[in-house]
Amino acid sequence: MSFPFTEEQVTHYIKENRSHTILGQTAQYIPALARQDSSKLGIVVMDHQGETVCSGDWDVSFTLQSISKILSFISVCTYYGIESVLEKVDVEPTGEAFNSIIPFEIHRPGKPFNPLINAGAITVSSMLPGETIEDKFRLFLDFLEKLIGKRPHLDEEVYESEWNTAHRNRALAYYLKESNLLELEVEDALAIYLKQCSITVRLDELAKIGLIIAYNGVNPITGEKIFPKEVARIAKVLMVTCGMYNSSGKFAANVGIPAKSGVSGGIVASVPPTCLDDHSCPNQGYGIGVYGPAIDSNGNSTAGTMLLSQLSKAYDFSIF
Amino acid sequence: MSFPFTEEQVTHYIKENRSHTILGQTAQYIPALARQDSSKLGIVVMDHQGETVCSGDWDVSFTLQSISKILSFISVCTYYGIESVLEKVDVEPTGEAFNSIIPFEIHRPGKPFNPLINAGAITVSSMLPGETIEDKFRLFLDFLEKLIGKRPHLDEEVYESEWNTAHRNRALAYYLKESNLLELEVEDALAIYLKQCSITVRLDELAKIGLIIAYNGVNPITGEKIFPKEVARIAKVLMVTCGMYNSSGKFAANVGIPAKSGVSGGIVASVPPTCLDDHSCPNQGYGIGVYGPAIDSNGNSTAGTMLLSQLSKAYDFSIF
Amino acid sequence: MSFPFTEEQVTHYIKENRSHTILGQTAQYIPALARQDSSKLGIVVMDHQGETVCSGDWDVSFTLQSISKILSFISVCTYYGIESVLEKVDVEPTGEAFNSIIPFEIHRPGKPFNPLINAGAITVSSMLPGETIEDKFRLFLDFLEKLIGKRPHLDEEVYESEWNTAHRNRALAYYLKESNLLELEVEDALAIYLKQCSITVRLDELAKIGLIIAYNGVNPITGEKIFPKEVARIAKVLMVTCGMYNSSGKFAANVGIPAKSGVSGGIVASVPPTCLDDHSCPNQGYGIGVYGPAIDSNGNSTAGTMLLSQLSKAYDFSIF
Amino acid sequence: MSFPFTEEQVTHYIKENRSHTILGQTAQYIPALARQDSSKLGIVVMDHQGETVCSGDWDVSFTLQSISKILSFISVCTYYGIESVLEKVDVEPTGEAFNSIIPFEIHRPGKPFNPLINAGAITVSSMLPGETIEDKFRLFLDFLEKLIGKRPHLDEEVYESEWNTAHRNRALAYYLKESNLLELEVEDALAIYLKQCSITVRLDELAKIGLIIAYNGVNPITGEKIFPKEVARIAKVLMVTCGMYNSSGKFAANVGIPAKSGVSGGIVASVPPTCLDDHSCPNQGYGIGVYGPAIDSNGNSTAGTMLLSQLSKAYDFSIF
Repeated sequence: MSFPFTEEQVTHYIKENRSHTILGQTAQYIPALARQDSSKLGIVVMDHQGETVCSGDWDVSFTLQSISKILSFISVCTYYGIESVLEKVDVEPTGEAFNSIIPFEIHRPGKPFNPLINAGAITVSSMLPGETIEDKFRLFLDFLEKLIGKRPHLDEEVYESEWNTAHRNRALAYYLKESNLLELEVEDALAIYLKQCSITVRLDELAKIGLIIAYNGVNPITGEKIFPKEVARIAKVLMVTCGMYNSSGKFAANVGIPAKSGVSGGIVASVPPTCLDDHSCPNQGYGIGVYGPAIDSNGNSTAGTMLLSQLSKAYDFSIF
Repeated sequence: MSFPFTEEQVTHYIKENRSHTILGQTAQYIPALARQDSSKLGIVVMDHQGETVCSGDWDVSFTLQSISKILSFISVCTYYGIESVLEKVDVEPTGEAFNSIIPFEIHRPGKPFNPLINAGAITVSSMLPGETIEDKFRLFLDFLEKLIGKRPHLDEEVYESEWNTAHRNRALAYYLKESNLLELEVEDALAIYLKQCSITVRLDELAKIGLIIAYNGVNPITGEKIFPKEVARIAKVLMVTCGMYNSSGKFAANVGIPAKSGVSGGIVASVPPTCLDDHSCPNQGYGIGVYGPAIDSNGNSTAGTMLLSQLSKAYDFSIF
Repeated sequence: MSFPFTEEQVTHYIKENRSHTILGQTAQYIPALARQDSSKLGIVVMDHQGETVCSGDWDVSFTLQSISKILSFISVCTYYGIESVLEKVDVEPTGEAFNSIIPFEIHRPGKPFNPLINAGAITVSSMLPGETIEDKFRLFLDFLEKLIGKRPHLDEEVYESEWNTAHRNRALAYYLKESNLLELEVEDALAIYLKQCSITVRLDELAKIGLIIAYNGVNPITGEKIFPKEVARIAKVLMVTCGMYNSSGKFAANVGIPAKSGVSGGIVASVPPTCLDDHSCPNQGYGIGVYGPAIDSNGNSTAGTMLLSQLSKAYDFSIF
Repeated sequence: MSFPFTEEQVTHYIKENRSHTILGQTAQYIPALARQDSSKLGIVVMDHQGETVCSGDWDVSFTLQSISKILSFISVCTYYGIESVLEKVDVEPTGEAFNSIIPFEIHRPGKPFNPLINAGAITVSSMLPGETIEDKFRLFLDFLEKLIGKRPHLDEEVYESEWNTAHRNRALAYYLKESNLLELEVEDALAIYLKQCSITVRLDELAKIGLIIAYNGVNPITGEKIFPKEVARIAKVLMVTCGMYNSSGKFAANVGIPAKSGVSGGIVASVPPTCLDDHSCPNQGYGIGVYGPAIDSNGNSTAGTMLLSQLSKAYDFSIF
């Protein structure tokens, strides 16, 4: 094991930060998210040998939500190459909300600013290989299975609720369609996008995903190369610049770890292996999964963000 | 010397990228910038012992322009602490242009998105310690002198031109004033901001600045600590997320080095020391100064950006 | 007959303005509109006795398109009262395009600015009385039948094309739905809206509609009161302030007649009876229908607008 | 006398509407406006023979503020012709606030939407004939003297306060300058604009101005023609479409009289002579001045607006 901390130390941080859950609340737009226990906070950290430190409410499963955006981006880039994907979506951060049409209309007929805002994510999801929605979704599950070692499943209740309340996403998608940025039919593009958001994961699975991104696409436990280094790098750039909704800049400043959050309260984070110039390596790279369903107005787990900030400062995880 | 390349190799890259100068043109809004030789391209790379590799049109001096924004931010944070500065300016990237009033008006009375857009930079400059413009500017020169080892001077012609054409900046500054975000008088805030933009530097000086940022505020040649590690980190975050105007995301994806550009065609870049997990260190940290006055529509040196991209790829300089 | 001009004089104006058709082109987004003969220009003017002056390409039929917006507004206001309608839609002009989401998102969760931009028109159409789309559409046809004396029909080809290309309108409607401004299901609201846009009319029918609006809701030929004076007045206000898309202000300044245009090239205009203070009445009120399918970038008939401008100046039709 | 009402009747309306003053408050941005007595409400109506009905707090003087915008527009159009003025400013309403930069930046480098938003008004003021500020201001006073029969004076205290707090207007003016829409120096353009806003008037003078606009530029009392009919018409169009800030549409719908308000609480309104088709003339045209310094969030007198609405409905003053 190569952890810089003991399970007890992590549990201490969990306890200290659990109080921050009262600063947020669960996402209210669909019942399945709203009824999550907002007092929960859990973490799994995985090292390059697959060992884990688990603490707090780690034995939970929840839906990927926006975390899926970075995964479909990686998947599509792996399949088609980065160049092809960047023809349809840019990689620039935007100060507007993740579901805003303003920047899009002002700069039209420009492509979406980046793959982590909804407009960009819908565009990317619609590029998933496959003729039908089922094909595309199967391929995305195949990719996730390669990442986490087991086939995740769709939370049908969440998907159905998402589908029925996706008015703003439909607005965005029809806007994209009108601008000739969406090759798929709008309802099909939404179906695949909302399905990917409704996939259930566990914290150890998130941690493994974070680990593989930290190791530039290679699973360090098995040595298997799952996606190219170039794709991993651009994924980390996006996680740093746009991964935490409209507080990505503050998260980069305070935490400094590539990460992507979702409104279910999950966060995947990638601590790349870093060594000092005296050749000692304070860490050899970790993947982190965090769950804290009380989210702030930006959509990020309140307690989860604070927990990551403290861990990063205490154990020097920042890439900056 | 610890360079991964020879001067000849760098000269080769200069030659290869000089053709990209024709894709841009010199900034046209003031004569002193417009009349720069748009075919120029030069670079100085400095290592942690103060050794340099100089190539192309490296023996030049030019004005800092927007590069000064990151320096005044570091200076003010060093003096007052990061917290005080972040009360007046946020650290979030924005997809709008560096001189846009749109995001500002939509989200008003919010503080400026970050210190590297003009609204944020004017706010930060106005915070420079000192009672008078002269005091504030002297203190900024003091700070630069500590960084580069000699006192830089103001290009009076550039300053006068900037002052006379600063209509958009005046609009921004009066907007800030109206929103109670500017404590100084507008004309005073503009004076100090435009003066800092009009300071002349040389490429080796830019490289040294980049080196000190890469070494988290310590001059590795002398061992002198010039600003706190925390300030250096947030500076690097801002350089990555917002340093290259509206192509910061693409620059992070393609180059991956914290950098800040100016419309004079200068770029300062900081390559932090990075080591692999086998304890070999491909680089021990560099500061880079680039000059290529032909800029693109975003305001970045066309050839300079390409040159940095090739060097980063060839010698693995990306932090991602 | 009470016309201030002879048919020959009107024909002279038609000839003079036909050349302006080359300054525009037919709407290109659906085949049925695109293939209209862009060189056409026709007019019918109807007086309070039902007499008409017809000139140019007057013997045509075409779809109402945006002209229907003012008619569904009148219909819904007549049924529910103005107050109820103004709870859901404002009556303020906007400088943004008729299909823009920008003002809407900036000022959210505000209601649509007015019933003549698409967002407002969709909101109003969805209020048409009736349980089903069929009921609502039947009621709208009933209302038109009362206005023009015969039951108009739906152009099925146009409706189908509109339905299949209505991406931007779907975006708007889903945006409305998400803001709780649309009680109907989005697809139902769009169906009724697009059906009303696809109703076929002739120029004499448009002229009669204009006449009834000019006479404040009373058909002066029969004396029948079809809608309240208050509704007619607010309709004329909307026609003046927002009736001609983003050149409504210029049209009011140059022509000064309440009017509403559509992208099919039709314009309905209402010349209210006006008398001078010496008690002579230069006109006793007219309804005007114009058809000129070559439209400008704002969506208004190029030649039709010029024709109305000349007639208004020559015969003092302006209400200002 | 040709009034449709007695002084007693008008006094009744004043009493009834005075309670609406508590729905607003005086403009707070400068002391001279803030300290006005917010409970005041007064009116002067003038007929074509110069007779007046005065009621409530009519014996007051106050500064023109935005009312001056329509007067400088009329003055400049009279001097240079409408065409020349419309090259620099459009006549389209905008849904954004009177001091917004948003529409301007989105549509840049477009000219200001209309002469009644601040950007347009500053542009128009800067066109006033004359070499110096003094010349321009003198010429504007000359024009006002022709309208009201005596030379009005500048309220120096108001002007000084306006000058010192005009941050937003300076922002707008520098924005205009940067877009090459302002020929004058910014500070000079602001001086003339703010001076015209700071001119003191009385209600009978406002009423006379309204009367002359209603009579298309002719003073009906003396028969003197002061400005062309075409200018009067476009002024009335602007008053209807943009005269009452962001509730111009609602004012047109509820009141239907061309009017212009200012944040001092003044409103000038023009009731054109209108006759019915039975040749009876319910009114022969009036000018109205209203004062009620308690303004709403849009900038319009709360009680003054209600008073005009009731009078318009009771005596059929609407042009629609």
